[in-house]
Amino acid sequence: MTAAAGSLEDWPMHAVDEAVRLGRMDRDEVSQRIASLPVDRRAAVFSRLTPRLQVDLAEAMTRDDLATLGAAMAPDDLADLAGLLGAEARAIFLADLDPELRACAERLIAHAAGTAGGIMTTDYAALEADATALETLDSLRRKAPEEAAMQRVLVLNEGRLVGAVPLRDVILAPDDARLGELMDAAPIHVGVGEDRETAARLVARYDLPVLPVVEDDGRLVGVITHDDAARALAAETTEDFQKTSTVLPISETIRDAGIGLLYRKRVVWLALLVFGNLFSGAGLAYFEEMILTYVSLVFFLPLLIDSSGNAGAQSATLMVRAMATGEVEISDWTRLLLRELAVAAGLGVTMALVVAPLGLWRGGGEVALVVAATMMVLVLLGSLVGMSLPFLLSRFKLDPATASGPLVTTISDGVGVLVYFTIATLVLG
Amino acid sequence: MTAAAGSLEDWPMHAVDEAVRLGRMDRDEVSQRIASLPVDRRAAVFSRLTPRLQVDLAEAMTRDDLATLGAAMAPDDLADLAGLLGAEARAIFLADLDPELRACAERLIAHAAGTAGGIMTTDYAALEADATALETLDSLRRKAPEEAAMQRVLVLNEGRLVGAVPLRDVILAPDDARLGELMDAAPIHVGVGEDRETAARLVARYDLPVLPVVEDDGRLVGVITHDDAARALAAETTEDFQKTSTVLPISETIRDAGIGLLYRKRVVWLALLVFGNLFSGAGLAYFEEMILTYVSLVFFLPLLIDSSGNAGAQSATLMVRAMATGEVEISDWTRLLLRELAVAAGLGVTMALVVAPLGLWRGGGEVALVVAATMMVLVLLGSLVGMSLPFLLSRFKLDPATASGPLVTTISDGVGVLVYFTIATLVLG
Repeated sequence: MTAAAGSLEDWPMHAVDEAVRLGRMDRDEVSQRIASLPVDRRAAVFSRLTPRLQVDLAEAMTRDDLATLGAAMAPDDLADLAGLLGAEARAIFLADLDPELRACAERLIAHAAGTAGGIMTTDYAALEADATALETLDSLRRKAPEEAAMQRVLVLNEGRLVGAVPLRDVILAPDDARLGELMDAAPIHVGVGEDRETAARLVARYDLPVLPVVEDDGRLVGVITHDDAARALAAETTEDFQKTSTVLPISETIRDAGIGLLYRKRVVWLALLVFGNLFSGAGLAYFEEMILTYVSLVFFLPLLIDSSGNAGAQSATLMVRAMATGEVEISDWTRLLLRELAVAAGLGVTMALVVAPLGLWRGGGEVALVVAATMMVLVLLGSLVGMSLPFLLSRFKLDPATASGPLVTTISDGVGVLVYFTIATLVLG
Repeated sequence: MTAAAGSLEDWPMHAVDEAVRLGRMDRDEVSQRIASLPVDRRAAVFSRLTPRLQVDLAEAMTRDDLATLGAAMAPDDLADLAGLLGAEARAIFLADLDPELRACAERLIAHAAGTAGGIMTTDYAALEADATALETLDSLRRKAPEEAAMQRVLVLNEGRLVGAVPLRDVILAPDDARLGELMDAAPIHVGVGEDRETAARLVARYDLPVLPVVEDDGRLVGVITHDDAARALAAETTEDFQKTSTVLPISETIRDAGIGLLYRKRVVWLALLVFGNLFSGAGLAYFEEMILTYVSLVFFLPLLIDSSGNAGAQSATLMVRAMATGEVEISDWTRLLLRELAVAAGLGVTMALVVAPLGLWRGGGEVALVVAATMMVLVLLGSLVGMSLPFLLSRFKLDPATASGPLVTTISDGVGVLVYFTIATLVLG
């Protein structure tokens, strides 16, 4: 992500901060400010603007200005920008680049945004196994890849990845040591079509500064640097948060997202869950007589179904997150289920004791019994549903993160109404 | 996090994977396996075990074995282990280390786990400004800091941090270039007592391979590497997920957490929210007559309050996450509030149209009107509460992440019952 030449650190304000500041300014001011920067700084700041702003500015630039900007950008940032432009504008933009840079950009653009290929860069350090440490350092001085990509020197055999050597080891080794001797001969790598989240989690799991990306035949095609991996992981995590609350994944930044986009991403589950809630409504209709006879039962309804939903949301969220970080696997389900039973039983008893005095106060001894017994069953059921749903979804190859709090709540509501009034019928009626 | 000498990459299975595999084995087998490894590999694998397992194994080791292990560990991993031991065991452990390593460890242990000092390492590269590029490389060869820490050479003046030079620039520079000429004279850094999340977000924001950590007087005391920052950020994010569903932050891994711990972290909010739900119960009691007269109103109660809570949870979660990543600030509130009003109005109208036919079917025209009107108001109110709560909490210096779905739901429940039956009274009674 650094400019091709010159150091970001020359400047008093970091490119990131300038980009954030520009993001809050008026569009015309931004255009002027960007145009006034020296070209390397301009590329560094521009690459850090939000996608929406990049597109707006690019469309307002002259063809020459855009070409000048492109020539100063890193290949992965260039590819990102090109990918955002309309087909015609993209073709013109690429045509204006020098052939080598255009070739890099086109290789990168070919990959879908959500894949390893979509977050890699073609700016990396790679040599053959017989290169010496001294030759490697000379090569690095000539080619000058970006800072993060330089941290691992990749070793190739006829273009195929066969090893990786930390830059540290190249520096520490005698001048005549060969890369083939220094290298890890089984370097962790990822396929170019692999999910970007898988790639990002590899980087995190193995503390990699750089993750090489290969084609099916083993040919090296790019690398994912730790900072780009972290950025991808943060985006995936934000999507998980959104799913937790039944918002469909939003690709824009929240500040930039428009009213229409937010509406579409939120209305789907809100409407779907209405139909889930019909079950609880039907249950209440079925027990109409009981409600009319013991109307105080209704006072506790929100309390009971909320508690059940909350307990379920707790379980579900803990599991979904643990599964996403790879901490928990499907094979853990039985052991964790037994533990959840114990925890839920404890929670259920506690909640029953909390709510019993309220039941006593508002409706008398028998109502207290009904409410307490229901609370205990519902907390237990809600927790078990909440814990199991992510595993079930995963077993059927669905995204476990769909097991959101609201979904679990809706399921336990329908069941909860049945349980509540059945217990009430048994005790009171 | 790498061993002091020898490369992790010598081994067919990465230390991380071996650690994960051991974590699922029987304790005795684990002890045997660990003891059978060559010492550097042993240290690398041990450091990656869960804290619970590290403590159990350390307590079962002989004093000599533990000392041997400690001598091979990186200073930050050593400090982490020492911090986990009981006071007496820690004293013995530290006493058995050689003085230099003990001093490093003690400096690190002094810092609380949730601070920058708690995730830094003392293994870094630092020289004075008049050192040349050649001298720097020689110094790096002698001192051989860990891979990640080597990426930035820190420049000191009498122990105080005055600059930072990427290793890349040291390599690219002529042999006689001085660090003072190459350096960024305003390097991003963090105070040793600063929150670890703040430090981790600095690393993410500026794509830093290494973040220097300083005392109040500017003296350099350690660095945070990008991988340790990523790990800290993942832990903080997991806590945010837990707060989203009203679980108090759990410091253990989910697989290791015991029944008692899970119970304590979940029961607090479950019980607290019961008292929040008393308001909805009281509201229902107040409108007892209405319920008895128009019992079909009760059929829609779960549906209405769930939808309100869901809409609120959506808003709240979007805001909490955006505030955590620094994308949204308190000053954005007004603009985002207006946008939320528009989105919520759209959602409210849609939901009202979805639910009107149901109201018609189950209760007739007037009930349909009541239900639809209530749905619209509740979705609007729920969204506004959900969006505002994180900002309000932040304004009062509380953690915005406390604005969980369940909390927002409980608040909108109480309001919702009042709104529902008030509208019903106006239309029907």
